Amino acid sequence: MNTSVIRYLLGYILKLEGFLLLLPCIVAGIYYEKSGIYFLIVALISIAIGFIFSAKKPRDFTFYLKEGCATTALGWVVLSIFGCLPFYISGEIPSFTDALFETISGFTTTGASILPEVESLSYCMNFWRCFTHWIGGMGVLVFLLAIIPLSGGSNINLMRAESPGPSVGKLVPKMKHTARLLYIIYFGLTTMEIIFLLFGKMPLYDAICTSLGTAGTGGFGIKNDSFCGYNVYLQWVVTIFMILFGVNFNAYYLLFFGHIRDALKVEEVRYYFGIIIASVVVISVNIAHMCTGVFDAVTKAAFQVGSIITTTGFSSTDFDRWPELSKTLLVLLMFIGACAGSTGGGIKVSRIVIAVKTILKELNGYIHPKSVKKLTFEHKPVDHDVIRSINVYFMTYAVIFVVSMLLVSVENYDFTTNFTAVAATFNNIGPGLSLVGPTCNFGFFNNFSKYILMFDMLAGRLELFPLLILFHPSIWKELFIQADKKVKGNRKEKQNVRM
Amino acid sequence: MNTSVIRYLLGYILKLEGFLLLLPCIVAGIYYEKSGIYFLIVALISIAIGFIFSAKKPRDFTFYLKEGCATTALGWVVLSIFGCLPFYISGEIPSFTDALFETISGFTTTGASILPEVESLSYCMNFWRCFTHWIGGMGVLVFLLAIIPLSGGSNINLMRAESPGPSVGKLVPKMKHTARLLYIIYFGLTTMEIIFLLFGKMPLYDAICTSLGTAGTGGFGIKNDSFCGYNVYLQWVVTIFMILFGVNFNAYYLLFFGHIRDALKVEEVRYYFGIIIASVVVISVNIAHMCTGVFDAVTKAAFQVGSIITTTGFSSTDFDRWPELSKTLLVLLMFIGACAGSTGGGIKVSRIVIAVKTILKELNGYIHPKSVKKLTFEHKPVDHDVIRSINVYFMTYAVIFVVSMLLVSVENYDFTTNFTAVAATFNNIGPGLSLVGPTCNFGFFNNFSKYILMFDMLAGRLELFPLLILFHPSIWKELFIQADKKVKGNRKEKQNVRM
Repeated sequence: MNTSVIRYLLGYILKLEGFLLLLPCIVAGIYYEKSGIYFLIVALISIAIGFIFSAKKPRDFTFYLKEGCATTALGWVVLSIFGCLPFYISGEIPSFTDALFETISGFTTTGASILPEVESLSYCMNFWRCFTHWIGGMGVLVFLLAIIPLSGGSNINLMRAESPGPSVGKLVPKMKHTARLLYIIYFGLTTMEIIFLLFGKMPLYDAICTSLGTAGTGGFGIKNDSFCGYNVYLQWVVTIFMILFGVNFNAYYLLFFGHIRDALKVEEVRYYFGIIIASVVVISVNIAHMCTGVFDAVTKAAFQVGSIITTTGFSSTDFDRWPELSKTLLVLLMFIGACAGSTGGGIKVSRIVIAVKTILKELNGYIHPKSVKKLTFEHKPVDHDVIRSINVYFMTYAVIFVVSMLLVSVENYDFTTNFTAVAATFNNIGPGLSLVGPTCNFGFFNNFSKYILMFDMLAGRLELFPLLILFHPSIWKELFIQADKKVKGNRKEKQNVRM
Repeated sequence: MNTSVIRYLLGYILKLEGFLLLLPCIVAGIYYEKSGIYFLIVALISIAIGFIFSAKKPRDFTFYLKEGCATTALGWVVLSIFGCLPFYISGEIPSFTDALFETISGFTTTGASILPEVESLSYCMNFWRCFTHWIGGMGVLVFLLAIIPLSGGSNINLMRAESPGPSVGKLVPKMKHTARLLYIIYFGLTTMEIIFLLFGKMPLYDAICTSLGTAGTGGFGIKNDSFCGYNVYLQWVVTIFMILFGVNFNAYYLLFFGHIRDALKVEEVRYYFGIIIASVVVISVNIAHMCTGVFDAVTKAAFQVGSIITTTGFSSTDFDRWPELSKTLLVLLMFIGACAGSTGGGIKVSRIVIAVKTILKELNGYIHPKSVKKLTFEHKPVDHDVIRSINVYFMTYAVIFVVSMLLVSVENYDFTTNFTAVAATFNNIGPGLSLVGPTCNFGFFNNFSKYILMFDMLAGRLELFPLLILFHPSIWKELFIQADKKVKGNRKEKQNVRM
């Protein structure tokens, strides 16, 4: 394994995080908050270590899937550990485990909080919480790809490990330009949301924090009651932007470059909107008796559906008190998740659509055994390898889910709590039902359960395998023992690269 | 489609059911019960209709997977409708829906009951309830295969549609002999259990009913408190036989014919016992504080683990009051289920093992991209087609599960109730948790939910696709409109038969 390039990239990630940590320092400066000093300290340490790590350029920049996964997984762990330090050393979150939970929840855009209330946090801390969503939403390594030069075409392995969805599409032939384009679209949409929120007379600080959380489909709010206190206009702005950030960014690329007809034809996006509309209709009818009118019901249903399917996790009402059908539908949406190539989590609409098409094809095979119809998605036949990887994804997903539930159930809370706690963290949503409902928090779990849920958040965000391979013994052997030997070996493997 | 052979086989099924219905008549005779007359009436009607259906021999006995599935699904529906009539017309179960629910629950070996208490039922009715388990356990069509002559090798399609597991293994080259052997082993084991129970001083009637329920891995009891009232010896006999009926019958075949070493090497059976032992240990420790000692804890844990993993569903204690870890583990065992080629339900150990191996292979592929190791099971490489069908099975399973949960949740019971009601019926277990826990019953659901759960029981027993194709519009078109045209078409298809 090419360990020197992993070290080099980890160094870059630390330097980047150091610079990002300077932003909350500025916020602290504006509000005259002393706690800004902690961000400055961590930023400097982070930058210093980053420079040490990336001081020596690796001789060889070759990069395989294995290195891509290891870098991504280690990168996210390092990012989270340094990111939680300001919370911890400032004492605003006195327990290290809690601070780490909150930060991983932030970077993975989960939005599950251990804090019983957030309004007592300082402005700079709250800003940092929301900003972690924005950083994690599009991905740190995608950002690195946009700014640092990696030779060869194999850097797609980095993006493959970090990007959500069953297959990585390059928007343009060069990875670097793809990564830049993604960040431009991301930044543009975020800015648009801030402007719309300002129109609704939301204070600038609130508007920025809310938009960062929406953009990353995160879910950390800066109010104790999440969105219940905001007016209907602001709720609709957030609803619409949540849904927009769950759209496959390929569609925006097509849209912005004038291929409007192609953009409208993106199959995943069509199913995504179909699911949203159907769910809003069902829930509106189901909760109508609890609302003041049709518009109120639709507002609440649309907000919650948008929030859950995109895995954002904001709440505009206590949906744990809704009828069972609506709650079950929301739990289902938790699993479906947003589009691939968006900032949302979950299983992703494209995987679900391909799975359903596979079932229909099988059923058809029973009736017409001679038929040799190919499975198509996005108007192209689906590659056999993609189907296989989706199947393995589903199985692995189920196994991790079950094992997590078993481990969390040791604590003896009720079935609904355990089930939705795992579902809400693994799919990067935030709130679940029962004891982890929208008015509650995750603080009551013991440290063991919290670490399980942290693992789930990271596994969900990195789509299972990049994190799982960290647990393969041979990776650790290669990282620490056989590093040098393997670098040579890798060169020989060049011909056999998995793409 | 060859509709005449389907009609012919349905006729046979009805005749067979008519004769089977005479057994409860005998029980009624022994106990001087008047309700025996209802069995006689239904038996005669069933036999009469059966003769009409099978009067005309089809010109063509050719049989494809499509016909196999349609016959199996229709056969089970017909079987259940006629089987429920004695309950209904005798008035012992006054609602037709409830009577049908109880009967489908019997034939599918689920054991979920709508009856608040069973001790007030007449002896013949209770015998019939337990006997349906025995009939459904090994399968009606497998029985037919043992007794009626079907030309060609294509009758494996019948067995394929009814037998549990990812692939159908013939024990001996001729299907007819395989089917007979299966029934001989089945009958032998059942008799052994009756003898062992009689040794424990259980009354003969109780011993027969209990053994029929255990053999089919059904779960209907004849006592209101299921097994809580029986002594420890009887509980252990039932525990051991439940577990034995969950073993792949291939292993018994090998055992009885002296291939002991081969029998011990059956991989699925090894994993099956491994899972059982591990679960018993964990649950024993977890419930120790609620028991009178280690032996008591192990007795209770073993009984419940055996009951749930084999999807029998007897209970020797109210496990809904156990700690959450034990309950979650039991819910997990509900999904795993017994071995393929046994009478148990659920996903089956072999499917789970192959799925886990697929995941490990994928993980290995990330680390060693050059490796081309083949996936092996039962010491043979697994056929690509088997893996594909397992994948499709998992996806279809998930979709049916989710849709059922949504439909059942319309009734507004709690999440745990809905989740475990669907899990317990779909996996053919019987009891779930919360409102459908071991001390409760399914009577409180409305008719709509009951029909959903009936569908789940049938879909679970027939392993999804044979039942699903009944909902394909082209099947109905072929059954009623294009019947004749298709018979000719099918002959041409002969070369393209899917095996």
